[in-house]
Amino acid sequence: MPGASHLELLTGNRLVALGALDAGCRFFSGYPITPSSEIYQTMMGELPARGGLALAAPDEITALAYCVGASLTGQKAMTATSGPGWCLMIETVQYAVMTETPVVIAVVQRLGPSTGGATQGAQGDVLLTQYCTSGSYTIPVLAPSNCRECYELTQAAFYWSERLRTPVILLSDKEVGMTSESVNLDSLNRWPVVERKPFSNNSARFRTYACDCLEDPPNFAAVGGRARVVATGSVHDQEGRLRKNAPEVLELLIHLQAKIDAHAAEIVLVEEEPCEDADLLIVSYGISARAGRAATRQLRAEGRRAAFLQIKSLFPVPKREIVRAAAGSKRVLVVEENLTGQYASVLEPIVGSDRLVRVNGIGHMITPGEILDRVETA
Amino acid sequence: MPGASHLELLTGNRLVALGALDAGCRFFSGYPITPSSEIYQTMMGELPARGGLALAAPDEITALAYCVGASLTGQKAMTATSGPGWCLMIETVQYAVMTETPVVIAVVQRLGPSTGGATQGAQGDVLLTQYCTSGSYTIPVLAPSNCRECYELTQAAFYWSERLRTPVILLSDKEVGMTSESVNLDSLNRWPVVERKPFSNNSARFRTYACDCLEDPPNFAAVGGRARVVATGSVHDQEGRLRKNAPEVLELLIHLQAKIDAHAAEIVLVEEEPCEDADLLIVSYGISARAGRAATRQLRAEGRRAAFLQIKSLFPVPKREIVRAAAGSKRVLVVEENLTGQYASVLEPIVGSDRLVRVNGIGHMITPGEILDRVETA
Amino acid sequence: MPGASHLELLTGNRLVALGALDAGCRFFSGYPITPSSEIYQTMMGELPARGGLALAAPDEITALAYCVGASLTGQKAMTATSGPGWCLMIETVQYAVMTETPVVIAVVQRLGPSTGGATQGAQGDVLLTQYCTSGSYTIPVLAPSNCRECYELTQAAFYWSERLRTPVILLSDKEVGMTSESVNLDSLNRWPVVERKPFSNNSARFRTYACDCLEDPPNFAAVGGRARVVATGSVHDQEGRLRKNAPEVLELLIHLQAKIDAHAAEIVLVEEEPCEDADLLIVSYGISARAGRAATRQLRAEGRRAAFLQIKSLFPVPKREIVRAAAGSKRVLVVEENLTGQYASVLEPIVGSDRLVRVNGIGHMITPGEILDRVETA
Amino acid sequence: MPGASHLELLTGNRLVALGALDAGCRFFSGYPITPSSEIYQTMMGELPARGGLALAAPDEITALAYCVGASLTGQKAMTATSGPGWCLMIETVQYAVMTETPVVIAVVQRLGPSTGGATQGAQGDVLLTQYCTSGSYTIPVLAPSNCRECYELTQAAFYWSERLRTPVILLSDKEVGMTSESVNLDSLNRWPVVERKPFSNNSARFRTYACDCLEDPPNFAAVGGRARVVATGSVHDQEGRLRKNAPEVLELLIHLQAKIDAHAAEIVLVEEEPCEDADLLIVSYGISARAGRAATRQLRAEGRRAAFLQIKSLFPVPKREIVRAAAGSKRVLVVEENLTGQYASVLEPIVGSDRLVRVNGIGHMITPGEILDRVETA
Repeated sequence: MPGASHLELLTGNRLVALGALDAGCRFFSGYPITPSSEIYQTMMGELPARGGLALAAPDEITALAYCVGASLTGQKAMTATSGPGWCLMIETVQYAVMTETPVVIAVVQRLGPSTGGATQGAQGDVLLTQYCTSGSYTIPVLAPSNCRECYELTQAAFYWSERLRTPVILLSDKEVGMTSESVNLDSLNRWPVVERKPFSNNSARFRTYACDCLEDPPNFAAVGGRARVVATGSVHDQEGRLRKNAPEVLELLIHLQAKIDAHAAEIVLVEEEPCEDADLLIVSYGISARAGRAATRQLRAEGRRAAFLQIKSLFPVPKREIVRAAAGSKRVLVVEENLTGQYASVLEPIVGSDRLVRVNGIGHMITPGEILDRVETA
Repeated sequence: MPGASHLELLTGNRLVALGALDAGCRFFSGYPITPSSEIYQTMMGELPARGGLALAAPDEITALAYCVGASLTGQKAMTATSGPGWCLMIETVQYAVMTETPVVIAVVQRLGPSTGGATQGAQGDVLLTQYCTSGSYTIPVLAPSNCRECYELTQAAFYWSERLRTPVILLSDKEVGMTSESVNLDSLNRWPVVERKPFSNNSARFRTYACDCLEDPPNFAAVGGRARVVATGSVHDQEGRLRKNAPEVLELLIHLQAKIDAHAAEIVLVEEEPCEDADLLIVSYGISARAGRAATRQLRAEGRRAAFLQIKSLFPVPKREIVRAAAGSKRVLVVEENLTGQYASVLEPIVGSDRLVRVNGIGHMITPGEILDRVETA
Repeated sequence: MPGASHLELLTGNRLVALGALDAGCRFFSGYPITPSSEIYQTMMGELPARGGLALAAPDEITALAYCVGASLTGQKAMTATSGPGWCLMIETVQYAVMTETPVVIAVVQRLGPSTGGATQGAQGDVLLTQYCTSGSYTIPVLAPSNCRECYELTQAAFYWSERLRTPVILLSDKEVGMTSESVNLDSLNRWPVVERKPFSNNSARFRTYACDCLEDPPNFAAVGGRARVVATGSVHDQEGRLRKNAPEVLELLIHLQAKIDAHAAEIVLVEEEPCEDADLLIVSYGISARAGRAATRQLRAEGRRAAFLQIKSLFPVPKREIVRAAAGSKRVLVVEENLTGQYASVLEPIVGSDRLVRVNGIGHMITPGEILDRVETA
Repeated sequence: MPGASHLELLTGNRLVALGALDAGCRFFSGYPITPSSEIYQTMMGELPARGGLALAAPDEITALAYCVGASLTGQKAMTATSGPGWCLMIETVQYAVMTETPVVIAVVQRLGPSTGGATQGAQGDVLLTQYCTSGSYTIPVLAPSNCRECYELTQAAFYWSERLRTPVILLSDKEVGMTSESVNLDSLNRWPVVERKPFSNNSARFRTYACDCLEDPPNFAAVGGRARVVATGSVHDQEGRLRKNAPEVLELLIHLQAKIDAHAAEIVLVEEEPCEDADLLIVSYGISARAGRAATRQLRAEGRRAAFLQIKSLFPVPKREIVRAAAGSKRVLVVEENLTGQYASVLEPIVGSDRLVRVNGIGHMITPGEILDRVETA
């Protein structure tokens, strides 16, 4: 049985690293922190053999700054951290947004706030990762629920990061990242490796932020190459010059959001277990999606008309898919491992407050049993 | 006319500083950044004469860390910054949340993301300040719209910070902070200066995080005093010992949210211009509230049944007041100077998507005329 | 016996702190490091009651920078560290030299290089403290050998630091700093508390670096006061403007050395145990001076013509006193706890290579017996 | 004329970089600072094509730390800086000394102290580079006087750094580093590329600091390889365990100096212009050696019996060569561009105070004329 020989026991963290390598990532910089450290270790160990560079940074600020710098030269770059390190990256991720620099940030969640619990899982960084910019620009956030998805969504993260020239966050968690699963590496789905659209009009002067339209990123020229590149975190015109409220400047800010919005439908990654005439929809993501799916199947086995929706692309919010999946349901349970229902608060205006039911908890993975209990009582 | 002699031309930033001084603030540390620097300068200049300490920090991380340290010894402490500095404080503000340490952070907004526009106003940090913790714990955010409110809300910020032992954010912006207005200092409303409830049972051993109930902060003993204090950013039991998923530990995390929720109704600060049988409600905050109020009055002058609600306490969200003010209105306009309608997204589940109308803009203060235009077209 | 009641058991570190307090030191900033931490702790504990400010710094760079900043405002300021922290201060001590800013740095030596041995004494930082500037400007270095001298030399350090507007290093060591001795506080000698000569000609414009003569520091105006002060670490003219090789600029560099040289004779602090017709001189400093003195007395008791010279002011080198004390001696033993004879290398050209004998050792206090052995064999 | 075709106009800084590349340097990290920046730029530009890594660091502390880290893995590593950056490296260079880690540090001198004059030459860092360790361990310091020597001494620096497992400083200056000279690259002398003696006894357990004798460095095993390496800046036994005053520990400290002393004679690099029956010796190094040589030749042309000695290996001090060259001379002039005669103070005990004449100056290159004037007047 040839295929069987490829089954390996691998953790989610390791598959994030392998996904990055296969996506063409050739630069990694990080500062180790539980529960993300295996990504760091794997990249340190395996990037050199792929011709890449893995760089220990003196702190998280420098780690992301190195990644952004490498990306400005055209490299595909990634860092990995957890909540306490993520906060320190927020200044630089904004610089990446403003300079339209692709970079993938794997955030492996642990229990917060502050240093919290290093070895306790959580899904508490949903809003902290999404609302990390002054101006609240949408940053794609992808959330895997198992090892296979760690690989595939990391690939997706690179795909969208490069295509839209934006930071993309892979939002994993301690349970997904540190649990070993049996994986057939040959069976994993790969995303195409994309390159930024290059600036090639050699007769023209390069203008760093000149867009053909608001919905697409500008053409790319590498820092250090022939063209003069102006990268700035300040508001700027198409040439990268700091100017105040000129219409061109404001248009470029609008563009930062518009390019994400324009591709929002394409970014959508959801997995549905539909049910005709469902009157109950269970929505979840990440580690909790496993419990959500199990609970749904149990309900179905009991003859209930329950559907399930796993959201892999948390942001931009897949509104249409959610509306469609929830159509007809009297109740929509949103299952997540945090205190207040972070993604539920995002879904609330979409599904309506009346039928939305939060299933939350901290300090342990939410179990199918807990969900079933809420189905009975909510 | 005796009162007239007290009229002074003062900026909002200066009134934040004066409000802090009158609230008993005796420690300030900061790193100057436009447009918040006048708060820094005023505190540097005037704190020493009040017997306090103003400390230039080498960076924003250290600035807030110093404030938290001073607060742990019992001082009332404040820092001031703008968006690019605020990101760097997010790690430490989580430590303040976890250790239940009072501290006031004045964030004077400018146009983002990244370094953005140093001298351009904005209301773009609403979500970045609120969703700054892993776990998404509610942090009170107060937003002044003029000089008087800068003074009063800074006082309110200290009041709630000390009472609930929590960071509180005063969310100002460039226009509010740097505009001079004529203010009669004698007419300003003062909040009572509160002290943390002290640990006083000398026969008992002090347990840093022992709460009588989930809804109130623990009693306070100053670091450096007689009692042994254990301050930790990690999950902990009542003694401050790092422990994993013990029920006591999780209960203390729940308590961090519960103490805010329990006092949410008291924290509410809104100002309403009601209108009987209003079919239109305009909601706004900060600098945009001025335009919102002016537009409402114009509509009323034209015979329209328009009401206005200024929200000063953005978080915890004053749901009841919003629901009541919006009752009967066919449309609820939310006016704010940012791209996507940040506070509107918070209000959407409360007022319902159907009648919510976003009035947004960046790069300039929103004018009454723009609001009136939307009233006609929305 | 009234005097007896004042005898207290105190460490050298504590007496450095008390000496600083009595010398008018009102600002301290530091980062704790063995074996200097008790200075830090004492200043933290006792400065506030004296109306001063003690400030925990995030690192040694910041610690000295704070002291220099405080001194620029007119405060007498001190920091304390050990070898691994001292290296990090070298950038800033040069800034103090260039800006003629008084500051006292207590360096409590431990075994190096690098982090070396935290709890092992040494006299290994003699050259590292003296040759800490690009250009090799003489910085006064004072070395106590016991608790009493810790107090008195710290006072001397402040005296010369303020009078000549220069950093002064108090070079203690682990044994001197951490050993408790019985001290009568009332019997300690005090140095006069001096103030910098103020700029007082209100009709003239203040020029930060205008000297009446090369041998004296300029008049002082505090940063933050009425006069405009220009403090710069770059080469500058009398106004503080960065200029290249103008004669005035080079003259100010010469002045930095000239002001020390001109007062070198006054700075001298030595303690001699003379011996008529001595043919042997033992020279030492710091902790080793105790063994040197004991060995000398032993030799004298045996009828040998041995003299002893303890050097308290290591730099500027008290040449005249050394030449005088060594006159007639056939051998000059220089006793110090380091590997290569650091101060011996400084004395070598003064006493001549032929008669100079190094008595060195590391890892333990040099004993009188070791010295006596070398007397026999050298 | 085939040779002529290879003449190129190159600066000293560029030849430092080329020398490093040809010496096998494959790792560079730095933070740009005038007048050393061209080394940084050249390494950034050319290392990748050689299969090496050039890494911009966030500060000088990190720059040297990265080099030390790379060297621990077996790479030949270099950084480059000037005085203000050198101070920040002193903590880490001590770690390199203690861990016996090869690294080359190019210090291109400018006028100090502090930030001093960025574009003004100087020879003021002689003592600051040599006396940079607690314990005053000898660190080889090599000083080029022209472009050719920049290349050759950089190669020598790598040779000795690797052979003795020690930091080596290439002490250049602004005039040498930034002046372009016509150089025939083919005619440059190359040093053999040496490798550290590897640990190869696979049957034995690796002990990081086990020396066969005090005079040679231990065998090397790369961090990240098969053997377990213990690198520590603290005093340690042969296994790398922190222990206090065990004889083995102290012996390893003695070894750090002994391995340099044992090879001091081999390290010597001097260039002499001898003169039979010379009664005058002119000694110099670096940029001033050019004036010294020119002055000597002028004196010889005038019939004076003057000899010249250029010292390329400043440390360890080539005593024997100096004594021999100075034998018979009534006067020994030491020419250097600093205020107090830094290297003269090192030579003073060797040649004797009576006949030593300092020829110093700051703010300009010393001219042959100045030297000739001193010959007449001294």
